[in-house]
Order: sequence, then C-alpha cells, then structure tokens
Amino acid sequence: MLEADLILEHAAELATPVGPAPRRGQAFGELVRITDASVGIAGEKLLFVGPSQDLGTKVRLKSGGRRMDVSGKTLLPGFVDPHTHLPFAGSRASEFKMRLAGKTYEEIAHSGGGILSTVEAVRAADLPELGRAAWTRLDRMMEWGTTTCEAKSGYGLSLESELKQLRVIRELSDSHPVEIVPTFLGAHAIPKEHRARRSEYIREVVEEMIPRVAAERLAEFCDVFCESVAFTVAEAERILEAGKRHGLKPRLHADQISSGGGAELAARLGAASADHLEFISGPGIEAMARAGVTAVLVPGASFFLRSEHRPPARRLVEAGVAVALATDLNPGTCPTEAMPPILVLACLTLGMSIEEAITAATLNAAHSLGRSEVIGSLEAGKQADIQVLDIPEAAHLVYHFGVNHVESVIKKGVVVYERTRLDAMLP
Amino acid sequence: MLEADLILEHAAELATPVGPAPRRGQAFGELVRITDASVGIAGEKLLFVGPSQDLGTKVRLKSGGRRMDVSGKTLLPGFVDPHTHLPFAGSRASEFKMRLAGKTYEEIAHSGGGILSTVEAVRAADLPELGRAAWTRLDRMMEWGTTTCEAKSGYGLSLESELKQLRVIRELSDSHPVEIVPTFLGAHAIPKEHRARRSEYIREVVEEMIPRVAAERLAEFCDVFCESVAFTVAEAERILEAGKRHGLKPRLHADQISSGGGAELAARLGAASADHLEFISGPGIEAMARAGVTAVLVPGASFFLRSEHRPPARRLVEAGVAVALATDLNPGTCPTEAMPPILVLACLTLGMSIEEAITAATLNAAHSLGRSEVIGSLEAGKQADIQVLDIPEAAHLVYHFGVNHVESVIKKGVVVYERTRLDAMLP
Repeated sequence: MLEADLILEHAAELATPVGPAPRRGQAFGELVRITDASVGIAGEKLLFVGPSQDLGTKVRLKSGGRRMDVSGKTLLPGFVDPHTHLPFAGSRASEFKMRLAGKTYEEIAHSGGGILSTVEAVRAADLPELGRAAWTRLDRMMEWGTTTCEAKSGYGLSLESELKQLRVIRELSDSHPVEIVPTFLGAHAIPKEHRARRSEYIREVVEEMIPRVAAERLAEFCDVFCESVAFTVAEAERILEAGKRHGLKPRLHADQISSGGGAELAARLGAASADHLEFISGPGIEAMARAGVTAVLVPGASFFLRSEHRPPARRLVEAGVAVALATDLNPGTCPTEAMPPILVLACLTLGMSIEEAITAATLNAAHSLGRSEVIGSLEAGKQADIQVLDIPEAAHLVYHFGVNHVESVIKKGVVVYERTRLDAMLP
Repeated sequence: MLEADLILEHAAELATPVGPAPRRGQAFGELVRITDASVGIAGEKLLFVGPSQDLGTKVRLKSGGRRMDVSGKTLLPGFVDPHTHLPFAGSRASEFKMRLAGKTYEEIAHSGGGILSTVEAVRAADLPELGRAAWTRLDRMMEWGTTTCEAKSGYGLSLESELKQLRVIRELSDSHPVEIVPTFLGAHAIPKEHRARRSEYIREVVEEMIPRVAAERLAEFCDVFCESVAFTVAEAERILEAGKRHGLKPRLHADQISSGGGAELAARLGAASADHLEFISGPGIEAMARAGVTAVLVPGASFFLRSEHRPPARRLVEAGVAVALATDLNPGTCPTEAMPPILVLACLTLGMSIEEAITAATLNAAHSLGRSEVIGSLEAGKQADIQVLDIPEAAHLVYHFGVNHVESVIKKGVVVYERTRLDAMLP
C-alpha cells in the first residue's frame, strides 16, 4: 500500500500525454483520457494516476494528509511554457497603437520602438525593479495553469545587463512556485553602441558573456535570434558552438521573418528547439524531423502582429516533428503570460487539434527544455505538477475560450494556487 | 458641496466615451482620457468624474462612506454586452471538435449538431437548472468587467420553452448584479416539429408567442435570425412588425452567412441594431447609416468558426454607422462570456482602434439597447457602473491581451466584485 500526502479524487476527466518524450519521427504521444480519475501524491511526486476505482486498492492517505474532491473538474499537467522573455521592463503599448493605426516598421523604429527600446528600459532598471515586474508575470502564468517556464535574457546586450537579467531569473527561480529554465540570449540584437562594429559585439558574446554565464551557472541554454535583421546563420553557428563548448545547450529563433536556413542550422547543431518557424522551408522541416529538433510555435506573436504568415503546424506534425507551443511573452510582439489563449490560437489559426495542442503545451514543451523525464505528463514517478480546471472535459479548455478555467495549481506536490470562488464572495 | 457614499481616488487613467448617444452619421463619440482621475458616487449615480485636483472642491465623503485608493489603476465604464444567448443548456464541444477536424456543416448537422441540438437540451432542462448555468455565466461576465448584458431566448422554439427561457432571464435579472436586457428570439430557427409547416410556426410566433411575451413584460426587444438558412426578409419583417405592435423594439441577426437584405430591413424598420453583418452589402451600410441603426459586431464568432469573412468594421465606421461589440455568447459559435478578448479581436482582426473598441463595447452598445442616457459612459448623473483595471492606461486592455485585468467592479454604486489579490494568498 502506497502512502500519499495529497489525494485528488473523482475528477470528471484527467487528460495527459504519456512520456517520457516524443521520439524522432513521432510528433505526438497519444493523449490519454481517463474519466472518474484520481491522483495520489507523495512529497513532490506522483504516486498514482488512474481510475478512481483503483485508488483505494493501491493508495492510502497518510494521517494529516489532504484529500481534495475534484469531482466535475478536469486534471491536466501544468503547462510548460518553453519560450518567454520574462525579465523585461517598460511597455511598448504606444508601438502597438502605431501598428494598429497602420504605421510601418520603419516609422515605428524611427519613433524609438522595437527591441532596442526595451533594452534601454532594462538597462535603466535595477534588479529589484526587474524582479517585481517579473514576479507579477509569474503570478499570472500560475493563475493560468503554467507550472514551468523558460526565461531568456536578451534585453541587456552588455555583460552587466545580461547578467542582471539572468540573476533576476535565478532569484525568481529560488522563490516563486513556477519553475524557471534559464536561457542566455545575448545574441538577440546588435546593441546601438556596436552598430558599426557588429563583429566586436559577437566577439564579446562568445569570449566574455558565454564563459561568464556558464561559470556562474546562470543558464542552461544558449539562444540566438537567427534572422536577416539580427544574426546570420554563420554568426549564430559560431555563438551556439561557443555555448555548447561551455555546456549551454543550443536553441534558436529561426525563420521568423524570412526563410534563412535557421531550421537547418538547428538540425545541424542538434539544437533542443527551433522557435517561430513562420517561414521555414521544406528542407528545413525535413532536417528538423531527422534531427529530432522540437518546433516551438508561438501563434500569439503572428496574431498580435496581424501577420498573414503562420507557422506550418500541420506540415510539421505530418513530417514527424515534435511541436511545442509557447507564449513568447515579451513587450513587443506578444505581451501575454497565459497559455490557454495560445492553445486556442493553435487550434483556430494553425489547425491543430485540441489533443495536439495539449501535448504541445505540456510534454513536448518539457522535452524541448530537456525535462520530459520529470515534467509534462501525469504519470507515476513524475513530478506532481497539476492544474485543476473547472470544466467537465479537457476539450473545453479550447472550446470555452477567452476565460480562465484554472481552479487550483499544484507544483511539486504543493497546492500553490487556489482560486477564490466568486459565489463565496457575493452577499 | 456634494456628498458621496463612495469615492475612487487617483486613478492613473480614466477613459470614457462621452454621450448621451452616437448621433446619426457619427460613428464614435470622442473617447475622453483623464490622468490622475477621481470619481464620486452617491447612491446608484455618478456625482463627480474628473481630475483628482477638482474632487476636493466639489465632493466630500459622507460619514460612513468608503474611499478606495485606485492609484496605478485604470477606470472604464462597465462593459455593455449587447448580444448574448445567455440561457442555454448543454455543450457543443463535440461539434467544435468535428469542425477542427475539417468536417463539413452537413456532416455536423447530420450527427445532431447545430442550433436544434441546443433546443433539445433547453427543452429538457428545468428552470432552476437553466438558471444555475446562466448564473455562472453572469459571474464570469462580471469578473471580466461586464455590468449590463442583453440576453435572448431562442432555444425554446415553443411557447412554453420560450417563456421558460425568458423567465430565467427575469429571475436572474432580479437577483444577479449584472443588469440584463431581455430579447425575445422565437424566430431563431424553425423547430423540427414544424419543418414541413414553417408558416404555421411563424403564425405561432406572431399570434401566440409575441402577445404573451409582451403581456407578461418578459422582453424589451424582438429579434429574428434573418438568413437563408433561417427566416426570409419577408418573414422577419412580419414578425418584427408584430413585435413592434406589441411594444417590442426590433433588432436582428442580419447578413451573417450571405448578403440577404437584412441590414436594409433593419434600416426600413428603424431597428435598434443589426447584428453580425459579415456579408452586409454597400447599400446595406448606407441604409444603416441613414437610419441610425447600430451595427453590433461579434468578431468572436468569425474567429471561433475560422471564417475568412469578417464584418467590414472600417467601412461601417467610415460610413458613419455606430458600431458596437458583443460576445454573441452561445454554445455553438462563440462560447465565451468575456468582452476583453472581443475587443482584442476587434482591433487585431477587424482593424478597429483601441479607442473605437472601447466606445463600441460601452456607449454604443448601451445605445443599441436604448440605455445610452443611463449607462455606457462615466459622466455625472449617469449610473455608477465602473470597472477598475489593474493597468496603467486603457490601451493595455488590448495590448496586454489574453489575461484578466479586472480588479473590481461597481454596479449601481455598489462594489459587487473584488478580485482577491494573489500576493495576499501566497505563503
């Protein structure tokens, strides 16, 4: 008989992909759906996941343990958001208003918009200020069911400011319930002061930033914005190879604005992921499938930018590429913390099925962060990261769109968020 | 000196259209934005709305009154949602899944989907069951800033079941903080049992339902689904004229699937609104502008149906038609209660500006419900229906999309909803 600290009983449905990970050429694991499901948790881990009728024969509650009745609710793995630019300062609402009014990219850049405006704001902010803003964002993520996220630097673009962003991420990681996977993105843009000497900035990234970030263990991944307006394939390769030598695993922003060989580079490097992919080429898709690179799609950005070009989710799935979904949380092109609207956009604008979207936002996202053995699915032995949703079946997460169904969130076996019921608040 | 029961002080921004109402040929009133704004409320009404520096010279707090510090927040009028099918039963998630999987309209209808499946569920539900489901929806509306909504019958399609829906609306209206404007939509579809005898059903609507609904004062408006797959222009005219004779003001579902003269009919009848308008004709736009009919657009439905055809918001605005925005809350084509995502879709998929979207979701929506003298804007003398948003300026409501910024809601001068702060809940 197993002893549980926490038991969730009689969920209307439990839906989970089954892992450990998508294999090469297999885009999605089967999404398992169990009706009248229960879950037993001991410490940080799942002890039992299955039909309620099997719970009693396998698990008993420790004295002092908690039993939660989740009848009528749906259980899902906590969302894993594998692409965020979490620690930023400032707002780019005025840039957004200009875009709605039909201003061009050049007009916006001319008026001081774009990535570099956020770089100025981040450089000017001190560490506590950056931390407070990011903390509020993590709270919102948690309220919407996210239990793990990736977080990138990339708005510092100088040794000191990049380290400042990564230190904010580490402090938050130590204190906030949402688990954070840190990524160094020094190669996000060429900073103003290096405009005329881009090779000098790349040298600084390779020879100064990467060794320092690695030495202080401030990141697990190294990312590059590989794009016509940012870093060339050759520059990205040099930076990501340097990262690899220092133990930082590669991932990259690829083929977002043009088809530039980013996906092919990701495959060549054995990157954990290639992200965006609005303009990925046919050979790029094949190369990613062969190399087992996860495609991290960010439909919120295409939507927010009112772009006609959307990542070819169906072609990726059909080619056997594992597809993950992310918010791309950032102040310029997708200022949202919430994963559910991203799943809705994946289904309605990219043609993904609800099952595919759920797997993409959990197990496949965890896989792209190298954590699919631990998180991303509800299976005995894995970490107990669970969202309890006030819906009768998982499909309502997309069907009943636009509102928040999260009722509580469990991270590493602890109930870290419980929504106050509105009906308890009314007179 | 005016005496207030409730004072909201030092909002970062207060944004409101100024009305009483859009005039013919004037699509949008100016959206007024006041920084460091305060509001004084006495009883159900706004006493003072203006710069904080003017508050003290004009208003003082009654003893026992409440003072709320809203510094850093934004104040907007509560949303007015002018098109919902609130009292329904059942789910159409399986129909949605079929659509995502590429099934055709015929295949879905064949498998029992469509309006008539909801009619079956509503007929089978008793009044308390319908009431509980709708109550939960009203709670969600309120959580997302809506303080007034329209609610239609139309899933009964028999005298008894239509009355049941309208009675649910009346009961909710008497008990829930969200104010409800009732609409009779007996002519939503031809019920199965009248398939072969449609004129008999129309006779029943005209001769039995409308007189009874009017006698029991169960509706203010009469609506018809004027469309190739529903009721012809001639049928709609007959029904809406009958409604008018009994004091029910006309509004209608027009030009949703095809350009069928619905907008022109709305203009001819002097309807309060014509709703949907995805396929409105050029002459239809001109007729609506001349007649002062409000266009109620429902971008959530086009989005949810993955339709390429979107209502021509810009052409309507440019022609001088007052444009309002609504959720179209219903289980088949737009199952959401929340207005903010509708404003986001209006800006990103219809090309409306943030200012236009806010006016459309407040004053113009109130106008379409005949209530623009009372609600829809924050002006002294009007009803105190206010949402307090945790954003530094109104633009963030659209810019910072996908999450809920509502911190509290005031209806008729009473704080009816206050969000529990997450940071107060963490250990």
